[in-house]
Amino acid sequence: MKAVQLHHYDQTPTLDSVAEPTITGPWDVIVDVGAAGLCRTDLHIIEGQWEAIQHPSLPYILGHENAGWVREVGSAVTNVVVGDTVIMHPLTSCGLCPACRVGQDSHCENATFPGLNANGGMAELLKTNARAVVKLDKGLEPKDVAALADAGLTAYHAVRKAASQLFPGTHAVVQGAGGLGHIGIQSLAAITSAEITVVDRSEKALELAKELGAHHTVLATDDATVEKQVLDITGGGAQIAFDFVGEKGAEKLAPKLIHNGGSHYVIGYGGRVELDTIEIISREISVVGNLVGTYNDLVELMALTAQGRVKLHTQTYPLANFDDAIADLDAGRLIGRGILVP
Amino acid sequence: MKAVQLHHYDQTPTLDSVAEPTITGPWDVIVDVGAAGLCRTDLHIIEGQWEAIQHPSLPYILGHENAGWVREVGSAVTNVVVGDTVIMHPLTSCGLCPACRVGQDSHCENATFPGLNANGGMAELLKTNARAVVKLDKGLEPKDVAALADAGLTAYHAVRKAASQLFPGTHAVVQGAGGLGHIGIQSLAAITSAEITVVDRSEKALELAKELGAHHTVLATDDATVEKQVLDITGGGAQIAFDFVGEKGAEKLAPKLIHNGGSHYVIGYGGRVELDTIEIISREISVVGNLVGTYNDLVELMALTAQGRVKLHTQTYPLANFDDAIADLDAGRLIGRGILVP
Amino acid sequence: MKAVQLHHYDQTPTLDSVAEPTITGPWDVIVDVGAAGLCRTDLHIIEGQWEAIQHPSLPYILGHENAGWVREVGSAVTNVVVGDTVIMHPLTSCGLCPACRVGQDSHCENATFPGLNANGGMAELLKTNARAVVKLDKGLEPKDVAALADAGLTAYHAVRKAASQLFPGTHAVVQGAGGLGHIGIQSLAAITSAEITVVDRSEKALELAKELGAHHTVLATDDATVEKQVLDITGGGAQIAFDFVGEKGAEKLAPKLIHNGGSHYVIGYGGRVELDTIEIISREISVVGNLVGTYNDLVELMALTAQGRVKLHTQTYPLANFDDAIADLDAGRLIGRGILVP
Amino acid sequence: MKAVQLHHYDQTPTLDSVAEPTITGPWDVIVDVGAAGLCRTDLHIIEGQWEAIQHPSLPYILGHENAGWVREVGSAVTNVVVGDTVIMHPLTSCGLCPACRVGQDSHCENATFPGLNANGGMAELLKTNARAVVKLDKGLEPKDVAALADAGLTAYHAVRKAASQLFPGTHAVVQGAGGLGHIGIQSLAAITSAEITVVDRSEKALELAKELGAHHTVLATDDATVEKQVLDITGGGAQIAFDFVGEKGAEKLAPKLIHNGGSHYVIGYGGRVELDTIEIISREISVVGNLVGTYNDLVELMALTAQGRVKLHTQTYPLANFDDAIADLDAGRLIGRGILVP
Repeated sequence: MKAVQLHHYDQTPTLDSVAEPTITGPWDVIVDVGAAGLCRTDLHIIEGQWEAIQHPSLPYILGHENAGWVREVGSAVTNVVVGDTVIMHPLTSCGLCPACRVGQDSHCENATFPGLNANGGMAELLKTNARAVVKLDKGLEPKDVAALADAGLTAYHAVRKAASQLFPGTHAVVQGAGGLGHIGIQSLAAITSAEITVVDRSEKALELAKELGAHHTVLATDDATVEKQVLDITGGGAQIAFDFVGEKGAEKLAPKLIHNGGSHYVIGYGGRVELDTIEIISREISVVGNLVGTYNDLVELMALTAQGRVKLHTQTYPLANFDDAIADLDAGRLIGRGILVP
Repeated sequence: MKAVQLHHYDQTPTLDSVAEPTITGPWDVIVDVGAAGLCRTDLHIIEGQWEAIQHPSLPYILGHENAGWVREVGSAVTNVVVGDTVIMHPLTSCGLCPACRVGQDSHCENATFPGLNANGGMAELLKTNARAVVKLDKGLEPKDVAALADAGLTAYHAVRKAASQLFPGTHAVVQGAGGLGHIGIQSLAAITSAEITVVDRSEKALELAKELGAHHTVLATDDATVEKQVLDITGGGAQIAFDFVGEKGAEKLAPKLIHNGGSHYVIGYGGRVELDTIEIISREISVVGNLVGTYNDLVELMALTAQGRVKLHTQTYPLANFDDAIADLDAGRLIGRGILVP
Repeated sequence: MKAVQLHHYDQTPTLDSVAEPTITGPWDVIVDVGAAGLCRTDLHIIEGQWEAIQHPSLPYILGHENAGWVREVGSAVTNVVVGDTVIMHPLTSCGLCPACRVGQDSHCENATFPGLNANGGMAELLKTNARAVVKLDKGLEPKDVAALADAGLTAYHAVRKAASQLFPGTHAVVQGAGGLGHIGIQSLAAITSAEITVVDRSEKALELAKELGAHHTVLATDDATVEKQVLDITGGGAQIAFDFVGEKGAEKLAPKLIHNGGSHYVIGYGGRVELDTIEIISREISVVGNLVGTYNDLVELMALTAQGRVKLHTQTYPLANFDDAIADLDAGRLIGRGILVP
Repeated sequence: MKAVQLHHYDQTPTLDSVAEPTITGPWDVIVDVGAAGLCRTDLHIIEGQWEAIQHPSLPYILGHENAGWVREVGSAVTNVVVGDTVIMHPLTSCGLCPACRVGQDSHCENATFPGLNANGGMAELLKTNARAVVKLDKGLEPKDVAALADAGLTAYHAVRKAASQLFPGTHAVVQGAGGLGHIGIQSLAAITSAEITVVDRSEKALELAKELGAHHTVLATDDATVEKQVLDITGGGAQIAFDFVGEKGAEKLAPKLIHNGGSHYVIGYGGRVELDTIEIISREISVVGNLVGTYNDLVELMALTAQGRVKLHTQTYPLANFDDAIADLDAGRLIGRGILVP
């Protein structure tokens, strides 16, 4: 089959002919890939930034946001049948470790992460396992949802963790209305009652934010101005600031946008949280980390998507043109999320 | 009446004769002080460190950890009667602001803080209000519980917030087995099922920790050794690290003592939390601030105290000898908590 | 002032001239009544059904769903000022008892209940207290919200208690789309992500339910048919059945409409829950009682109302025509909720 | 191998020679049985009471409370190795259905229940699966814990569900200090801070209850006397009544032993809950069903057992003498739980 393989760090991947994956274990599932999302993380992988964390054996197939149709299943698979439309949770979890037993499968001790440390979905076929596949509503197409499998899932997960605190009359602030943020805004509008204020440097992103459910928007100019505007809008600070940026000062500004007792949810990364303990205790604030979502989070996100409450903006490329997609993403020409279709 | 007043920062307070407080509002309560705790915060107040935060009018009466007997009540007071033994929550909350309405009275927008910004309890009489008084079980003596009103309450509050996560098989780490920590250890043993590991620089403090319920102790030598020992004991990190120190490196070590998904509870202060966002998200850890407890926390702590499950070590001084108590505290001669008795 | 007083059970109340209420306590608030809701409970009060529970001294002024403008406040009132638009929580809670201290003021041990055991709001002036008044957004008119103060608050409270369980992909069933139910449906649509299925005997009520946010409707014919239809729609039963009827068989049907692990929320009353313990345990189901909401629930409901997410259908009568309103309600001529305006 | 098989309902099982089980699936685990608990449910099975619910194919091997040592594992098993000491969760869950994905494996849609609808543990070998085995602390012996696998697990599960509500100052009432109840009392003492009041008809059971952690005991004479005593002890009713009896009037008494806002936890069964909806709503009480615990509950219960905080009283019989054990249980001669050892 055709597959996009990374052979050397800092070199463009190539479209190769490789052997098809085969069922070797009882829980294996082989999927006809319908769509694979392209994500900034893929650029970082090519640059070698994930080598130290995931240390995959090169060459291997990229693609960690995948959806498609079940082609073949192992002997113990009972939750999907051949022909089902499915989206893949990024981790192939084990179902036996303590994290899996409480539904926190994103912390599974034994998982592989296709596209990061195992063959991914930028190919005609993908091998995954029964615990990773979410069966989709018939109305959903792989190319419309694939990019929710990782970035969208992370945004939803953060909102879901906070949801029970965001009742009517509360305020949520969203920093960054880009790839993750625009899913976060839709998730907030769908599952919470909070008033949503979005902060971004781009007026265009703020316009989109309003269409997606933001009640207020603040153009990110200097921090002091943003802080003043957000405190005015929120009556002294939000219950929760969702920081989808996590760098370039957003992570320093976030604690100033919440009221006493509130939380700074860290989702984006790159920067550094620095807070005096006296401020943490006297304001009784929290800093809350957020990893990718769980399998259940993905099931819920797909339910929202089937209801039309969460939508992605995408640009589709044939798999063979993967290098155009990478170039467009790298050059900032890609509007929305890039989707590779075999 | 006699009262210990602070006239000038950086000067020893004096024992003065002052006018007795009188009932002026419907919710006022005047208490015959039975005991007032002396706390390191009092030293900081004398040094002027709280001027910028609380800016009290000098002179005023010190003492923010108070217990005694009700002497007189305002027209609207229905929850205590003259003669009741009571301990005072440190804040005289309003009962009307949003924080009070949800039981988060430690965040009351309209409270006074006797001993910090209003006359405190190092005196024969204290004026407080109906929402601050907790009626005590008959078996409890003011001098045995007064020091739980602020420091003990803070320690209990942190443990209480974490309690639902500390089920059988989990681990809690306590950093610092001093004034707050030794109440924290007793609270952990009383209301959680976690295995408790205590880290302290003092072997004597660790011995006491074991008597109070610690399952494991680690002498705080260098950070790398402590980290290794704690990770061994806890099988890879605790669910929660309770940092009762909050400075001198404890606040940097805490995140290394928890496993993925765990929390660093900040209670002590003085230092600075510094964490890369990539670490926060990839480990999905949280940093949780802890202020003094709520009124309900104090009610619960008094229930534990009445059952004999939380005990203070104290050293009693007549009110007139307050300067001996201060000198002993300052010089490190005071074992346990100092208590002034009028 | 003019007021509608009940002099004898089973006799129509009369419009009398009575003395105006005066401030006598520090927390008293006197309100210019803007609107008083008329409710089926008022009919039951006139019939004497509440005598045994509330035993008021006759004559007294009816009206337990009230909104208006603050006219005068007691010496200790800090949360409203003269001229504020307010809606009244039905209970004048104390702020001192254990229930009040945790925000469960609907269980206050010391409250009065104006309109049930004290003078109510079918009058030009109402005396209430500081802990009962919720300051309203300027866009809200007393006549548009008064009827939310009791019936609407009860419906919202039940939905709010269940909200954290009603995430995307879950199902909620509503039995009864009448006075309480139609607020319940709007609340479900506003603060949960559940798919909503409404069961009612009236096709007209089901049409309204769809407009208010119901995703599916089931005409209540025989129980077996309803059960089958609901189980089909919900894929084997809802997470929660909200029983706004509570009698005439609805309370027997409810447990059949939920899946294993689900809950039957009882809100309406009149009937009797009867369940074999073997069914309760083998299906691990719960039966959950719901009283009127708390003060915080009312604050949240007003936030939703200000956002236009919850609306009442009302019919307004001058206070002097209260007997027309009562007659219309009794005869089933009153569409929506009756509102008396002084 | 030797195994106790049921051939016909209402006839004593027989000790037969049967074929040893073999690994046929990737997640299979075969265990050398160390101990199998005998339980009143086994008598009901023999009487045919479970035929309609579980409809097993006769003959089959009894025994649903099992512990032992791993003898052989399937190709996909990673959580135990040959030689590990294990206790078996009663259900062999699938890890793929929605209930399993959230850690509610006791509601698994695809499980078998060895001893009820598949071959159980009254034999030399038991076939179970990887998701059912809990690896035990080295200090635990199969014969000391086997009977916790079902009855004890059910009691612990109920207490665990309630634990976050049972903070210091609250009250829990336990109805029935027998097989389940005495584990419930120990669990309450170990993981909650509630004051525990135990009601039982046997003075001997009440004595044992005190040793196990009960703070108060009430001899079950007539209901009115019990109600009065419990309300006195608890200051107006418990937060939660744990009804381990569920029949013979206990299920009618339970709601009278809780205060407003409290819950009746149903664990035992046989009787019928009957409550007027007006009582349910005006008191805002709940009735909460409790099934057997989850896998995680069993892990936690084993942690408590390893710490010595939960203990069983047992009487051991060789497997060949199973009929003596059954006769002793039936005749009330068996003190504590009967354990069969191959």
